[in-house]
Amino acid sequence: MDYILAAAVEGQTKVLLALFIMLGAAKIMAEIFERLRQPTVVGEILAGMIIGPSLLGWIAPSEITDTLAEIGVIFLLFTVGLETKPASIFYVGKRAGMVAILGVVAPFVGGWLLMKAWGGSGIESMFLGTAMVATSVGITARVLSTMGVLNAITSRIILGAAVIDDILGLMILAVVSSLAMGPVNYLSIITTGVLAVVFTAFIVLVGEPVVKRVAPRIENKRGSQVLFISSLVLCLGISVAAAYVGVAAIVGAFLAGMTFAEVAEQRPTMHKQMAGVTEFLVPFFLVNIGMQLKLGLFGDPSVIVFAVVVTLVAVITKLVGCGAGAWGLSWRRVGQVGMGMVPRGEVGIVVAQIGLGMAVIGDSLYAVVLMMAVATTLIAPPFLRILYAKEDSREKAGAKNLAAEA
Amino acid sequence: MDYILAAAVEGQTKVLLALFIMLGAAKIMAEIFERLRQPTVVGEILAGMIIGPSLLGWIAPSEITDTLAEIGVIFLLFTVGLETKPASIFYVGKRAGMVAILGVVAPFVGGWLLMKAWGGSGIESMFLGTAMVATSVGITARVLSTMGVLNAITSRIILGAAVIDDILGLMILAVVSSLAMGPVNYLSIITTGVLAVVFTAFIVLVGEPVVKRVAPRIENKRGSQVLFISSLVLCLGISVAAAYVGVAAIVGAFLAGMTFAEVAEQRPTMHKQMAGVTEFLVPFFLVNIGMQLKLGLFGDPSVIVFAVVVTLVAVITKLVGCGAGAWGLSWRRVGQVGMGMVPRGEVGIVVAQIGLGMAVIGDSLYAVVLMMAVATTLIAPPFLRILYAKEDSREKAGAKNLAAEA
Repeated sequence: MDYILAAAVEGQTKVLLALFIMLGAAKIMAEIFERLRQPTVVGEILAGMIIGPSLLGWIAPSEITDTLAEIGVIFLLFTVGLETKPASIFYVGKRAGMVAILGVVAPFVGGWLLMKAWGGSGIESMFLGTAMVATSVGITARVLSTMGVLNAITSRIILGAAVIDDILGLMILAVVSSLAMGPVNYLSIITTGVLAVVFTAFIVLVGEPVVKRVAPRIENKRGSQVLFISSLVLCLGISVAAAYVGVAAIVGAFLAGMTFAEVAEQRPTMHKQMAGVTEFLVPFFLVNIGMQLKLGLFGDPSVIVFAVVVTLVAVITKLVGCGAGAWGLSWRRVGQVGMGMVPRGEVGIVVAQIGLGMAVIGDSLYAVVLMMAVATTLIAPPFLRILYAKEDSREKAGAKNLAAEA
Repeated sequence: MDYILAAAVEGQTKVLLALFIMLGAAKIMAEIFERLRQPTVVGEILAGMIIGPSLLGWIAPSEITDTLAEIGVIFLLFTVGLETKPASIFYVGKRAGMVAILGVVAPFVGGWLLMKAWGGSGIESMFLGTAMVATSVGITARVLSTMGVLNAITSRIILGAAVIDDILGLMILAVVSSLAMGPVNYLSIITTGVLAVVFTAFIVLVGEPVVKRVAPRIENKRGSQVLFISSLVLCLGISVAAAYVGVAAIVGAFLAGMTFAEVAEQRPTMHKQMAGVTEFLVPFFLVNIGMQLKLGLFGDPSVIVFAVVVTLVAVITKLVGCGAGAWGLSWRRVGQVGMGMVPRGEVGIVVAQIGLGMAVIGDSLYAVVLMMAVATTLIAPPFLRILYAKEDSREKAGAKNLAAEA
């Protein structure tokens, strides 16, 4: 074929080839991890590390892969929201709040002090603390969903805490980036916080009754296909609105899912269609996290040592902070909650990118945060699997009785 | 919130906002067209024209929208393939071949003579002819699938003819672009043609038995989720291979779907999961076609007149050419086949882009081809709906008896 034609075809073919490699690699690794009885999320993130720039170099993160990853995590959280009725979160509200607050304070202070001790500047130290604050609920949600324990009391605490954690994390990021730029505008930060809380409350309190009333009408007139696609449109809309208000888009997607939870419960077809979308898109989210890690940045052995220490502190402070918030539950459940909040995933990576963009942190601290984000994400799933494994069937059977404990 | 944070969040939020607008607009227009009893595809393409650069200017075609459109049409053709058993195409093979060949010759000659008569150069004339050759089977497939008549004898003729039409169209494009560049390498063109035919035969003849044997094993061991995602990986892989061999990626996707047709028939869950993916992604394909149209290019009234004439010739030559190939069937069926091959869609747009890139055609001829591609795509669905409407139930009930007619 003519080379000009080939060039014209090449662009779209390259994208399809990239999708094929990413999805194929993710699923092969997931299969291997499944057979080794390890969490498949870890396999899919490792797939990204293998095909990414650090090792084989087949695929590099691009606007396209970032977009697919973004859509993937949006619909993942939407699906998780679909299985979470608002009432079940309200039920654990106070405890989730404690878990979120202590789980934000401990890593921030830990990261700050650690960087100070390592000889970092004040603003560098605060940035490391900030990067260690935000939990990436996507990974934990995926593990819990795969194990079928989303209804467990601790799962609901984790999900509720993740929403609050996200709002707190964004406020801290706003304060710290303001400090780096000059005088802090406290009014705008407080406004952001209030707006985020009002937005969350509005979506849950007003959204659910509206959806419950409107959904059957749409369905009766236009069939389940239209209800399904309407829910996707609403999910995207609320995610965008959440991002503009100052909450993460994935929190918006989770809230959107919650408003549809009761409606979806009686409609298995909607679940299957949604599963089709997420099964296709979520691997891009996981592979994309793995692709971010640039091993080349770890030339200096001292950087590696520091990265290991930071990762340890990141794990311990979340475990201790969130564990303290969950105090009073059984030891196993304290562990479930603590470990469930450990993964920093793409949220930590975004904070690191912001710090790098502001020239507040350098290349090596960026590499350290990246490593911490990916490592915490890889560490948590196997422990979660162990912590939930035995309780699995008991939780499912007796979710109601156990709820009394909270 | 701090402006640097806002800027960092902005990138991903913009993409989500674009998705929200595209999906929302597509579904609102689809709803309006449904209530007007018009084909929803037309509504979704018009949605693209409305939100695109020509009118509201909310969204412009970008790498992201092109990618989503590409994935959308890939999975659309895969889904159509899932409902098309290879045997049902072999059955109508000869007739499909006639429809394809006459349906390629007539528009090519028509476009060539028309441009010559309008004072165009030899190469310009051949390029217009080439742009009028290739049918975009995606649109027709969507209409037939929505109406539930994919099993009708004429639907199978159209699908079979579209595969052959695509191979012929790519060979003509190779010849014409070679002519524009200098001496024609006939050997490479013949190689491309032979390779395309061998590839198609290989996928269908070898792929189906392999899938039939392997699929139940995957499913027994790992559940239906893994079978579903494996089929998506295979679909992407065969699409990429098809593009490299010189067949369009969408033809590869269709062939991939056909190899899974029997396996999918007994698995309603697989259909529902696939429906989830296509319902989400296909609107981006349709909206993207509408967004391509740049009304600003039609400043000169003579361009508009020429565009209308070209569109008429494009419709008539396909109707007559493909209709002649379907000779011997009832009038209604001749009309179904002819009209089903009319839409040029994204294939015509790609040819126009290649011509523009080679500087063989100018801006105004580019605008004319674009208009022809979009207009033929908008014209066909309402007629298809009328042509299939009455026969609908009869076809479905008596598909086997009617098959004797072919």
